[in-house]
Amino acid sequence: MRVGPSQEEIRRSNLGALLRSVHLHGAMSRADLTTSLGLNRSTIGALTADLAGAGLVSEGVPREQRGRAGRPSLVVRPESEKVYVYAFAVEVDRIVAARVGLGGVLLDRFEAARPRGEHDAATVVAPIADFVRKMQLASPAGARLIGSGAAVSAMVRRDDGYVRLGPQLGWADQPLGEALGVLVGDGRPVAVRNNADLAALAEHTRGAAAGCDNLVYLYGDAGIGGGIIAAGRPVTGHGGYGGEVGHMVVNPNGKPCSCGSHGCWETEIGEHALLAAAGRNATAGREGILAVVDAASRGDNTAQAAMRQVGDWLGFGVANLVNIFNPEMVIFGGTLREVYLASAAQVRSRLNRNGLPACREHVRLRTPQLGQDAALIGAAELAFEPLFADPLFA
Amino acid sequence: MRVGPSQEEIRRSNLGALLRSVHLHGAMSRADLTTSLGLNRSTIGALTADLAGAGLVSEGVPREQRGRAGRPSLVVRPESEKVYVYAFAVEVDRIVAARVGLGGVLLDRFEAARPRGEHDAATVVAPIADFVRKMQLASPAGARLIGSGAAVSAMVRRDDGYVRLGPQLGWADQPLGEALGVLVGDGRPVAVRNNADLAALAEHTRGAAAGCDNLVYLYGDAGIGGGIIAAGRPVTGHGGYGGEVGHMVVNPNGKPCSCGSHGCWETEIGEHALLAAAGRNATAGREGILAVVDAASRGDNTAQAAMRQVGDWLGFGVANLVNIFNPEMVIFGGTLREVYLASAAQVRSRLNRNGLPACREHVRLRTPQLGQDAALIGAAELAFEPLFADPLFA
Repeated sequence: MRVGPSQEEIRRSNLGALLRSVHLHGAMSRADLTTSLGLNRSTIGALTADLAGAGLVSEGVPREQRGRAGRPSLVVRPESEKVYVYAFAVEVDRIVAARVGLGGVLLDRFEAARPRGEHDAATVVAPIADFVRKMQLASPAGARLIGSGAAVSAMVRRDDGYVRLGPQLGWADQPLGEALGVLVGDGRPVAVRNNADLAALAEHTRGAAAGCDNLVYLYGDAGIGGGIIAAGRPVTGHGGYGGEVGHMVVNPNGKPCSCGSHGCWETEIGEHALLAAAGRNATAGREGILAVVDAASRGDNTAQAAMRQVGDWLGFGVANLVNIFNPEMVIFGGTLREVYLASAAQVRSRLNRNGLPACREHVRLRTPQLGQDAALIGAAELAFEPLFADPLFA
Repeated sequence: MRVGPSQEEIRRSNLGALLRSVHLHGAMSRADLTTSLGLNRSTIGALTADLAGAGLVSEGVPREQRGRAGRPSLVVRPESEKVYVYAFAVEVDRIVAARVGLGGVLLDRFEAARPRGEHDAATVVAPIADFVRKMQLASPAGARLIGSGAAVSAMVRRDDGYVRLGPQLGWADQPLGEALGVLVGDGRPVAVRNNADLAALAEHTRGAAAGCDNLVYLYGDAGIGGGIIAAGRPVTGHGGYGGEVGHMVVNPNGKPCSCGSHGCWETEIGEHALLAAAGRNATAGREGILAVVDAASRGDNTAQAAMRQVGDWLGFGVANLVNIFNPEMVIFGGTLREVYLASAAQVRSRLNRNGLPACREHVRLRTPQLGQDAALIGAAELAFEPLFADPLFA
């Protein structure tokens, strides 16, 4: 049973709200903070002093006012160089590690190709260990690591970042959260989430879906992942495994799926399906998808027919999700971005046929704003969350 | 941007938590309240005094201690006779109105058959008006109406209770919330929700899913509705139209659906589908379903084959929802209760084939605890919500 918070909890909550504001919006004047947080000026002053004392923000003259005459109004700025997190992304074909400063500033970024056909998380932990050493060397003296977050194309147990299954990675039962925890040296497992869940979080926090509280994010590569936000909060289910929209069966007479079932949505709209329908090498990946899209745009009949077919199935599943979630927005990420752009008419037409008018009438179909690094950005946001929950003691 | 609450908000939140406790659990001692709310005895005493002063609770000797020797320990009890809401349910074949006291006590209940084939909300508003007059007469002097809530088998706009579409009712564009608001006389629209959403809320609040924060509730009659709870909160989407799982297309080559699409889940598992598969009158409704279940249990081959077929499709859609929501529980309500009980083996078998192991491993398949009135109970809970948000000023 939830009860009301104490005075100390109120202060903590206000500190978190102020810090989150400058994290999301960048430098803000006290006047802007007063308006946006609904607190009075003296409270904002006291909170700012506390956060500055903890080395989380600083006050200064805004860049555009430097050198001008008159008394400048000060702004509160996140200490992006001094307060940072590590963010990791393990994707089918690459491994990325980044150091991200408060305010969402990318301080360092390292990327390596992921060797295909490796079935052990150790093969990604080794290069990440190397990246972490480089990032540690790059961190200025006195800078403070808040935490770490990781995105992975797999089903992840929320509590400890244990990867249950990542068919596209060829992984099963890999203790990724624990292994990364050892690397970054804080003894606890690193927070790990499914990459589509984190891309959804990132687009919701600072991307195409900012201010949009009901969102379905779809990520496509060889598989199809989903990240759902409902009433402003991620829908990840009991253990953290929710959002597996790629394994919604849409075609009972369909092809076998890597999961053991038949006719899963990803057998109709995953990269393999489009490449096969276009008569191409089904494992050509992103380059192959771009080649089909390009051929279709130049009038190639086979490529156009393949795009129409996959676009229709894409709209088919989107309609199901729109009927279930009544979202304000659906975002197409990964190679689904290209597939959607090249088949938007089919997608919309199928959505109009299968989607209930009340559920679909306000839905916007969009491409991501954050590009290929959305899941990485989401991993950084995840790592910052404890700081906003308790800024002085996180 | 959410900021911390004031002292007054804390008090309000604590008052709401205490009142909700006795609403859900019935009479509780101050000691039990102290433990369950995590507040000290003097705070509990002060909150109880405030709530008693407002006529919401009373303190007294528990029934089992009356007449015993020794000093009794007092309990805090909801004023069920004096504080009440109106709850309404508009279903395919009946209309129910009830007066429900704080603590979830059913004080009055009226039911009428709904005339089939009527396409205007006025035909249900008239008998409800009669029920409301009777309930007004039955309310003791000085008793206080907190508010009203209504459940309807339809897609409802959250903001004003406007029914967009209720194919099973034959309704479109009916201002039910407004019409009920005029009846109960408070000038504002009555809060109206989809019946499956409210049945899910009721089972989550005080039924089979109490304590279970990730729930999929399925309600079947001629159509199939869904009520989703994720991380403890209802998933109803942008306008309130979410949860339309009956219009998830599961069979692209399937039968036409009342919604205009083809192969929606409800064309495979709705009452019509089972009755048609069993070679019976497709409009026989609940009685017809019970007859098929009975025939199957007595060895009728046609009925058994129909049950197996529908059970397989039931498991098919459940597997999709389990992959999307990773719920702890799926509840089968309405006539789906009988269908599930008679075909549990098929449902589980299909779930095991199509559901991802991580998503399905902890899921419990259950029947409702609250019976036919679950949506009505949910409507009462909805009507009480403003009281718990601000007990002294609701």
